[in-house]
Amino acid sequence: MIKLNQISTDAPPDLDKSEAKEQTKVYVERLGELQKMLIAQKKYSVLVILQGMDGSGKDGAAENVFKDCHPNSLRVISFKKPTEEEFAHDFLWRIHKNAPPKGMVHIFNRSQYEDVLIQQVHKWIDNERVKKRLESINAFEELLVYDNNTVLFKFMLHISKEQQEIELKQRLNDPEKFWKHNAGDWKEREHWDEYMRCYDEVLNQSSIPWTVVPVDQRWYRDYLIAKTMVETLEKLDLAFPPLQE
Amino acid sequence: MIKLNQISTDAPPDLDKSEAKEQTKVYVERLGELQKMLIAQKKYSVLVILQGMDGSGKDGAAENVFKDCHPNSLRVISFKKPTEEEFAHDFLWRIHKNAPPKGMVHIFNRSQYEDVLIQQVHKWIDNERVKKRLESINAFEELLVYDNNTVLFKFMLHISKEQQEIELKQRLNDPEKFWKHNAGDWKEREHWDEYMRCYDEVLNQSSIPWTVVPVDQRWYRDYLIAKTMVETLEKLDLAFPPLQE
Repeated sequence: MIKLNQISTDAPPDLDKSEAKEQTKVYVERLGELQKMLIAQKKYSVLVILQGMDGSGKDGAAENVFKDCHPNSLRVISFKKPTEEEFAHDFLWRIHKNAPPKGMVHIFNRSQYEDVLIQQVHKWIDNERVKKRLESINAFEELLVYDNNTVLFKFMLHISKEQQEIELKQRLNDPEKFWKHNAGDWKEREHWDEYMRCYDEVLNQSSIPWTVVPVDQRWYRDYLIAKTMVETLEKLDLAFPPLQE
Repeated sequence: MIKLNQISTDAPPDLDKSEAKEQTKVYVERLGELQKMLIAQKKYSVLVILQGMDGSGKDGAAENVFKDCHPNSLRVISFKKPTEEEFAHDFLWRIHKNAPPKGMVHIFNRSQYEDVLIQQVHKWIDNERVKKRLESINAFEELLVYDNNTVLFKFMLHISKEQQEIELKQRLNDPEKFWKHNAGDWKEREHWDEYMRCYDEVLNQSSIPWTVVPVDQRWYRDYLIAKTMVETLEKLDLAFPPLQE
């Protein structure tokens, strides 16, 4: 049983920062190499879900961890407020459309989980629908895995409420971050405890497990995501195909 | 427990043909009226799945039953051999993309069920995958129903092996039907019994039930599909919205 308030948002105290940063570079580079095999082999697809509160560093993770991946076969999809067309469909319609084909790495910046998080927090849907949606999400993710060899990474970017305040304030003070400022983020922050309760539910109801990533130190976020991905992908039979006659 | 070989492919003997044809006209017209409310109200979507062996009259059903529907809000999607892009995804990817938005009627000429029928008959997938795909289909259809108010009609067009021969031969004799002739259909016909076994499995494993439509007489096919749809849609709260201020 996962309880986020019992999980630290800090890097482990015994991990040396500069060593971890060196190691991250190695992982990031290796991820780029593994992606080339993925492209060449066209056997697997990779889906990386980045979920987390505002300011938890989803954009930064997408920027740093995949910097040695070839952009041809890498796509970031950011799920924002649904368009009119999306809203006229079930909640998984726009998600499924963006599922990665074999050979591709897709990064979801926010995801299907928003439809059980923000929508539950604001009571736009009732508990019965939350339950059904969680079941639909499980069935959908299992489908991607068994029917399209999708390697699914689900990272919950775990930030403390104090660190979020620092991150959101930076957007008010740094001219290069003004564009990220959104008054709505401060309003969402008022629902912090309810968000944490809903995240706990999501983490515990998922049939395909999550990796909770402590992100108060950004270097540890990149380190843990890159390490997790490389270690998992190394276990597959990724390889460059032999020369075709 | 449904067994297709115990279900007649003929119209019920006590149904008068010319009366049924008159009645069909009324249903078809009423379906057009109900569709206008559907378009105006944008509360429900309608998905009509037409499945059946070659020559079972899927095209004819789509042509006749919906002739009074407005083509703006009606779309027929024919699922043929997957494209390269479709094939690089899970089997439901191309299906889900074509799910109807609210206010629309979508007709699937063949459907997700081909991926457990033809693929099972030819042993392109093993039994384990058939089972998983049937579960995925159930979860997918339930999602459309609860999360997008989709009214789902699943019609299995039930033809006899003898009548199929007549239909396929017509394609060899009628110059207006030459274009429908496909030598592959005669090859698929050799697997008739295995197809029936797989259809039985599909009919019995579906959580959302099918309507088996005897189609040896085409007038009865149109009659039963139109009747079923109108009677179901009449039970909904379809209505034209009041004037907006």
